[in-house]
Amino acid sequence: EEVAKLLALKAQLGDNGTKQKFVLKTPKGTRDYNPAQMAIREDAMNTIKACFRRHGAETIETPVFELKETLTGKYGEDSKLIYDLADQGGEILSLRYDLTVPFARYVAMNKISNIKRYHIAKVYRRDNPAMTRGRYREFYQCDFDIAGQYDCMLPDAECVKIVAEILESLKIGNFVIKLNHRKILDGMFAACGVPEDKFRSICSAVDKLDKTFWDDVRMEMVDEKGLAPDCADLIGTYVRLSGGKDLIEQLKQDERLSKNKLVMQGLDEMKLLLRYCDLYGVLDKVSFDLSLARGLDYYTGVIYEAVLKGTPASEAKANGESVGVGSVAGGGRYDNLVGMFDAKGRNVPCVGVSIGIERVFSIMEAQVNMKATRTTDTQVYVASAQKNLVEERLKLCNELWNADLKTEQSYKEKPKLLVQLQYCEEHGIPLAVVIGESEIEKGIVKLRNVATRKEREVPREKMIEEIRLELQQLSS
Amino acid sequence: EEVAKLLALKAQLGDNGTKQKFVLKTPKGTRDYNPAQMAIREDAMNTIKACFRRHGAETIETPVFELKETLTGKYGEDSKLIYDLADQGGEILSLRYDLTVPFARYVAMNKISNIKRYHIAKVYRRDNPAMTRGRYREFYQCDFDIAGQYDCMLPDAECVKIVAEILESLKIGNFVIKLNHRKILDGMFAACGVPEDKFRSICSAVDKLDKTFWDDVRMEMVDEKGLAPDCADLIGTYVRLSGGKDLIEQLKQDERLSKNKLVMQGLDEMKLLLRYCDLYGVLDKVSFDLSLARGLDYYTGVIYEAVLKGTPASEAKANGESVGVGSVAGGGRYDNLVGMFDAKGRNVPCVGVSIGIERVFSIMEAQVNMKATRTTDTQVYVASAQKNLVEERLKLCNELWNADLKTEQSYKEKPKLLVQLQYCEEHGIPLAVVIGESEIEKGIVKLRNVATRKEREVPREKMIEEIRLELQQLSS
Repeated sequence: EEVAKLLALKAQLGDNGTKQKFVLKTPKGTRDYNPAQMAIREDAMNTIKACFRRHGAETIETPVFELKETLTGKYGEDSKLIYDLADQGGEILSLRYDLTVPFARYVAMNKISNIKRYHIAKVYRRDNPAMTRGRYREFYQCDFDIAGQYDCMLPDAECVKIVAEILESLKIGNFVIKLNHRKILDGMFAACGVPEDKFRSICSAVDKLDKTFWDDVRMEMVDEKGLAPDCADLIGTYVRLSGGKDLIEQLKQDERLSKNKLVMQGLDEMKLLLRYCDLYGVLDKVSFDLSLARGLDYYTGVIYEAVLKGTPASEAKANGESVGVGSVAGGGRYDNLVGMFDAKGRNVPCVGVSIGIERVFSIMEAQVNMKATRTTDTQVYVASAQKNLVEERLKLCNELWNADLKTEQSYKEKPKLLVQLQYCEEHGIPLAVVIGESEIEKGIVKLRNVATRKEREVPREKMIEEIRLELQQLSS
Repeated sequence: EEVAKLLALKAQLGDNGTKQKFVLKTPKGTRDYNPAQMAIREDAMNTIKACFRRHGAETIETPVFELKETLTGKYGEDSKLIYDLADQGGEILSLRYDLTVPFARYVAMNKISNIKRYHIAKVYRRDNPAMTRGRYREFYQCDFDIAGQYDCMLPDAECVKIVAEILESLKIGNFVIKLNHRKILDGMFAACGVPEDKFRSICSAVDKLDKTFWDDVRMEMVDEKGLAPDCADLIGTYVRLSGGKDLIEQLKQDERLSKNKLVMQGLDEMKLLLRYCDLYGVLDKVSFDLSLARGLDYYTGVIYEAVLKGTPASEAKANGESVGVGSVAGGGRYDNLVGMFDAKGRNVPCVGVSIGIERVFSIMEAQVNMKATRTTDTQVYVASAQKNLVEERLKLCNELWNADLKTEQSYKEKPKLLVQLQYCEEHGIPLAVVIGESEIEKGIVKLRNVATRKEREVPREKMIEEIRLELQQLSS
């Protein structure tokens, strides 16, 4: 009986619903950007790009998809989130998951020994979207990387400096850049008795500490990953530590850790990094934090993560995940990734950082009055006071465009003057050129200041000049 | 026996080939852009963007993939070229094939009644790549569209004006913007006796006239598409015509065509378009060309295509396809596309144009000396004359970055002065700040003009000021 009802309902829908049988939406976890959102976004991206270029970076671009095998074995537990393309004959392809692996492929493929590049582009992850907090399946990354055989911590410190510069100029609130070192983590795991083949999976568990309580992380280590309980507890005592130079000295004295060469090497490097951060004036922005692990497999040295301070961690964890936006930038050193693409295993050491721009947008969108955001740059509007002046308007527009003045007009043949002037006011266009029969006869135009509504007569042949002057006055 | 040989060979490969079992390449039909290519590309894109903004356009962005059903039934014969994503559970998705259908989806979904927007992004087509001529499977489109209920030919003429402005400012050679009208084409098909259900497929055949000879097109019409031979011959007499206002008058007198209302309406609209083109100063750039058809199904009115003049058509056709780059822009009016996405069939008339930027890049790359193209903006290089000055260099860089000066330094602790100065010369960096023990003692820095190799001493506290002055002089 219920089936019959449904069928009847369906037949009914079929009758008057022939046009739209599909759902009108963007794919799950994706969104369109409207003009106001784009204006904010381009603003933020220009700030970021300016910083990258201030540090002497050039830019490259890679395709949105790669051969699937290029991505295989680079992301550890996250590999399941990669989007595959359908097999339509030919190569097996996947959408890029980040910009780092394609960059390493590029460096290896072109046998580049050193490059400092930025790349701003979208990446794709079949993750559980949380769009209110700026987490999408399609999202922008703004990456800056330095590849080349250089001296210890010099490129690494510049990445920290760049993150600090960008987050300060974006004005999205106070932040801290957490620092850690894979050598310290791995050495600490060894010193705590973690078997070497479990390093990466235990690291991946530690990485969740920013989202969940230690108890859950411990459970994952012991129950899921088969770590001995007392071994997990030992790790627990370390990963809760954070600080600065003092913590480095404390760990150097630690009986268990000080016996481990890897830890000691990592601590020396961390000390140098903090020294350079001091010289770069960003020491007060960084925190050496042993709970920072980063999920990805490919990191081999320093790792970074910038977190906005606004949201107290306790509140964030109470909801199971961060309430605020949390991490806004992250990165680290990956010295073996390029070698994975080279036939002879030739390596190019790399370090880089990625700005999580979507989260930045979420904050900026909340800060800004979206309705007051101008989405065009139009400087002049050509309006007519009577009918039958369409050809005259076209001639004026042509003159203004040819003079590189940003100009609009109505696409109606006989628009009402009031409608045209209203358009100017609503869209924040500063100037209007108004013509009528009498102006044409006199060889003049009326130049209107839209905000003050004051008009003055200007000889037609001086129009461009007068508009330029007036725009200059308005912007000063 | 052969199998045994192969197995032995494979075992051999397995031994010393463990590192790289994969091919190091980008997917078929795609490419990376290196920094020099990017510099040229950003230059071209900025020119295009500036023109769109000069005409008062705002920008939007849509996801790189859409629900598959959003794209279904929009592209006619080209639908087979759409990239599908693998079914990994969840929605069935495809990569966008152009920016027009996503734009129409956006307009319908957000119930927008008018918008003038540009969108610069990559689209995806599983076409036969011809990369030497700038034809890729992943390529940029630069789209400008005007949506809204406006008066005849006013938005359409602005699109022509925009194409002319862009192609002129890109300086890639002489061009002609071919114009035609789907109403004229469809009316002509009807007048020649083409059955209505064959309009689109015959139109698609005519579209190939720019790449192949009439004989081949005729064969496709008759043999493949079942058109009566004399009907095809009639079409042949028309599609070879092109001209200006004169041709419009000639066709209005044509016995066969003048009886068709659709043709007459199309001719009147074409006449108005040419009038507006005249007022916009681009009449000498356009040609009313009856062979222009455009492949896509969704066009309903005026259609455009801009072609570079360099390559003689005869030579192009001799090779079976265009030798030069051919079409560099195209578009047209599509009044019913938005309605296809609206539950109530509510329509928003649209007209737009797309710049085929990859072909433009191919030409620009061939014009420019790639090796001389600067890929960074670096203004100052901080160099040290002795060892052990790394901390001093870091302090100087920090000062310069904080003053928004684009600054680089060596990532070596103890770089050689000569190597540092060579880097400046090779990378076209205009200024270098050189420090040594004695400069530090005296509280000065040496400011070096890299091109002239002249150095002068500058008090440390006046460094920023002096650099700004010198940069100003260099750029003037």
